[in-house]
Amino acid sequence: MAYRSPVAEIRFILDKVVPLAPVTETERFAEATGETVEAVLTEAGRLCDEVMAPLLRAGDLHPAKLENGVVRSSPGFKEAYAQIAEGHWVAVAADPDYGGMGLPQTLCVAINDMMSGANLALQLNPLLTQGQIEALEHHASEEIKALYIPKLIAGTWSGTMNLTEPQAGSDVGALRTKAEPQGDGTYAITGQKIFISWGDSDLTENICHLVLARLPDAAPGTKGISLFMVPKRLPDAAGNPGVANSLKVVSLEHKMGLHGSPTCVMSFEGATGWMVGEPNKGMAAMFTMMNNARLAVGVQGIGIAEGAYQKALAYAQERVQFAPIIAHADVRRMLAEMRAEIFAARAIALACAVALDMGRATGAAEWQARAALLTPIAKAYGTDVGIHVADQGIQVHGGMGFVEETGAAQYLRDVRVTAIYEGTNGIQAMDLVGRKMMDEGRAAFRLLQEVEDAAKAAREALPDLAEAVWQAAETLREATEALIAQGTQDRFAGAVPYLRAFARVLGAHFHLQAALAESARAKLAAIYIRRILPQAEADLAAARAGAVDLFALSPDDLGA
Amino acid sequence: MAYRSPVAEIRFILDKVVPLAPVTETERFAEATGETVEAVLTEAGRLCDEVMAPLLRAGDLHPAKLENGVVRSSPGFKEAYAQIAEGHWVAVAADPDYGGMGLPQTLCVAINDMMSGANLALQLNPLLTQGQIEALEHHASEEIKALYIPKLIAGTWSGTMNLTEPQAGSDVGALRTKAEPQGDGTYAITGQKIFISWGDSDLTENICHLVLARLPDAAPGTKGISLFMVPKRLPDAAGNPGVANSLKVVSLEHKMGLHGSPTCVMSFEGATGWMVGEPNKGMAAMFTMMNNARLAVGVQGIGIAEGAYQKALAYAQERVQFAPIIAHADVRRMLAEMRAEIFAARAIALACAVALDMGRATGAAEWQARAALLTPIAKAYGTDVGIHVADQGIQVHGGMGFVEETGAAQYLRDVRVTAIYEGTNGIQAMDLVGRKMMDEGRAAFRLLQEVEDAAKAAREALPDLAEAVWQAAETLREATEALIAQGTQDRFAGAVPYLRAFARVLGAHFHLQAALAESARAKLAAIYIRRILPQAEADLAAARAGAVDLFALSPDDLGA
Repeated sequence: MAYRSPVAEIRFILDKVVPLAPVTETERFAEATGETVEAVLTEAGRLCDEVMAPLLRAGDLHPAKLENGVVRSSPGFKEAYAQIAEGHWVAVAADPDYGGMGLPQTLCVAINDMMSGANLALQLNPLLTQGQIEALEHHASEEIKALYIPKLIAGTWSGTMNLTEPQAGSDVGALRTKAEPQGDGTYAITGQKIFISWGDSDLTENICHLVLARLPDAAPGTKGISLFMVPKRLPDAAGNPGVANSLKVVSLEHKMGLHGSPTCVMSFEGATGWMVGEPNKGMAAMFTMMNNARLAVGVQGIGIAEGAYQKALAYAQERVQFAPIIAHADVRRMLAEMRAEIFAARAIALACAVALDMGRATGAAEWQARAALLTPIAKAYGTDVGIHVADQGIQVHGGMGFVEETGAAQYLRDVRVTAIYEGTNGIQAMDLVGRKMMDEGRAAFRLLQEVEDAAKAAREALPDLAEAVWQAAETLREATEALIAQGTQDRFAGAVPYLRAFARVLGAHFHLQAALAESARAKLAAIYIRRILPQAEADLAAARAGAVDLFALSPDDLGA
Repeated sequence: MAYRSPVAEIRFILDKVVPLAPVTETERFAEATGETVEAVLTEAGRLCDEVMAPLLRAGDLHPAKLENGVVRSSPGFKEAYAQIAEGHWVAVAADPDYGGMGLPQTLCVAINDMMSGANLALQLNPLLTQGQIEALEHHASEEIKALYIPKLIAGTWSGTMNLTEPQAGSDVGALRTKAEPQGDGTYAITGQKIFISWGDSDLTENICHLVLARLPDAAPGTKGISLFMVPKRLPDAAGNPGVANSLKVVSLEHKMGLHGSPTCVMSFEGATGWMVGEPNKGMAAMFTMMNNARLAVGVQGIGIAEGAYQKALAYAQERVQFAPIIAHADVRRMLAEMRAEIFAARAIALACAVALDMGRATGAAEWQARAALLTPIAKAYGTDVGIHVADQGIQVHGGMGFVEETGAAQYLRDVRVTAIYEGTNGIQAMDLVGRKMMDEGRAAFRLLQEVEDAAKAAREALPDLAEAVWQAAETLREATEALIAQGTQDRFAGAVPYLRAFARVLGAHFHLQAALAESARAKLAAIYIRRILPQAEADLAAARAGAVDLFALSPDDLGA
């Protein structure tokens, strides 16, 4: 069974559930007409199905390798990447002034979804480039923009993010890489970075590292961090890749999955770099970029869930034990819940993307706050759904699910990291109950009001489902009020179950909207609202439990 | 951080929560005094920690290999197995008449728990032998018993189970392997079997295959299946391994995990076999054995959870991001929930084992029904906890969790199959709501009554916790009544969430008992009862949802 990009499903959501129309009605995105959207998604889908998906297993079986200091990518990846670049698919949302298509971020998200389902390891390469383009658009000097962005958009150069060091993971402020001014406007970058995805490859003629480092005498912590562009090969006078910079890949990690994506330990040894943005403002620049990257990672989870689901569904239709196993109630339950969860996570991610686009196109603070609120939810829930659906995909396959040739296991091994990188899902949840509620929950309450109003409006058409959604939103509202009244430690203790419950309520809301828009959708909506939404209440009980009982546990109680 | 067998934790449960005392007070198990129990667990723990655990990663990195038709096991496994056999650890519960120690099954379960946490791939070998011994004890002729059982107990020969064929997985009755009588009391066995764990190895001098096959003109389905002993090498007149039998390993599977355990495709080509039990009664013999094997697999999940938890706890104490990460509320939440879940699953498994022992020692139908009821719960919940805890163990490790050298990922890869083999967890749940409730729920209601009575008795000492447990048991009782009134398809649709809820209620009950027995345990009990038990209600809502909405989904609704 070959992967088929879910073009029709995404179209349905953007037409009826999370309308793209307000975005395309803005001046900024006026060119994204219905035909354009249709054509872009269809063409991207074809690339995913015909070029990227067939290489999924090759990437797993033949990991990227480090040979003589250079990364050689998995078989077929170079050729497939060339088609991505030639088709202008690296960065469809990038600025037209630099050669981009200037499409809404929402379409970029939709394409990332489809590409992730096809081949996550390969998709991660252009995704990182997208993040870099965005950081440069917002923070780089005109010279750097003019030199780098067109090549990144064209896909002849690719981008990486260099944040993590052995002692500096979630605590980015602990990083030690140094940047010494050279007196000619450049800096000498020295230090070691780890977990650098696609830190080297043979896909592009140059690789542009965005590196967080400290100027001499910079303040400790995050306030003393600056951002630098450090290319693998220094551009010559004509802007072409010239002499090698003083940096190298030390080793590649052996990972549980995502073998096609080389995860590099990088060593910068007095490498030449150019500052991006202001001195000591590197974290701010990273934060701009990180919000989009977080949404993008959530979408990776959704894409994998789609791929895993399609494979499980096909197997359930074909595998006979007594009857085709899809005729067994428990197998059907798994498939129905998988599909319902994917819809919910996808609608949330697209709603986040639409809010981003509206924020950009209109400058309205409310849209920006909506996007900021939805980002950690989209990231954590999208990746949790990715992991859960991939796990259930294995289960549907029975014994064959544990055998690697089947391909079901690879989805779980590949997707597992998405709950970790770009900020663990715990960090996302703390972002939600911390930074994203520093407005005393205004953005959250505004969204919940919309959910409740929509549920009220649905009462006549779908009384049972609407009532359940309204009730769950009300319970979430109460829990939100309780959470805001709590101290930080208590909030953080409840953050993960709170985020999950928030996502369930939003998922139920979007299912309800889908059911209103198309009556056949009420069946799947009922699966979600009757079988999955009730978990929100249990999660909110845990969310409100506070931290006291956790810290009452002694090392002895924990068996340490 | 090295794995340490949880001897003290198991002792605590057997002393205070699920007392072993009634078992050791029976005549049959009178020799299992407190000192014996202590000595057995301590010695077994030492073997696990010092001999088996150090080979965990070697088994993953260097899978068992098929070379010239023979399986060569992972480095160190042969030597470690020799120590298991020499220490008489293969089958501590086996009949003393054949050289066994005749200890209670409960101790065997406790040892399997510790061995699974140390090295699941290696532990699976003696586990299969245990199952075979049990099948032979119950069903084989005196000649077969006398010839095979002493060698199996001594560990010089090992046992396998040959059920599955490509078209016959959950539907065992679809198997096609043939058994032709040879006129001399033997049978010629011909057919292909798949997913045969440890179907060959260099650990033992002979390998004894128990094979399900059909006599000529046998009835179709499960009623035409007989059981045969088919040794790799035919015993000579002295009972030593003689000439090779006509069977071979065709290939080994490439699996997601458990690489140290060779999973074989076996071909029987007119191999000589001896019938075990009556003609066409092979399924009954398998069922005797399967109940114990299912409990044993549940315990594999618990063991892996223990190993994964210990590793995560050590990392959380040592890894500093701002502070040791165990000081972060969300990390503490994960660890506390992991530990609370492990306790719950372990107590359920040991309660099942005690019921088994009591059933055997006293012959009382109520104990036997208790064991039968708890078996699918122990299997499915134990393995679900194994998967969930291993997954959370990765999450606690952050980026390092995705790197194979860390070892956290291996636990998840290894344990994943336990929810599939020996009957998928869906099959377990159907067994619970089907076969195990054919008594109109009497065994279930009796157990729930005990849970409620115990909760009532705890009200004075621990009012909040006791009330929550009582309430949850009451909700489960109502759901059980509703389920019994439903038709099969509706029951099956709700089976998995029903089983999970049942396990949560039992887990909460045992936590409450632990808290009563030792006041320091109330803290962990509160974690379980306040944060995890509330999910039972959501699960019971799903359990009662029936099958109608699932079967209302058209292929189109499922995206097929």
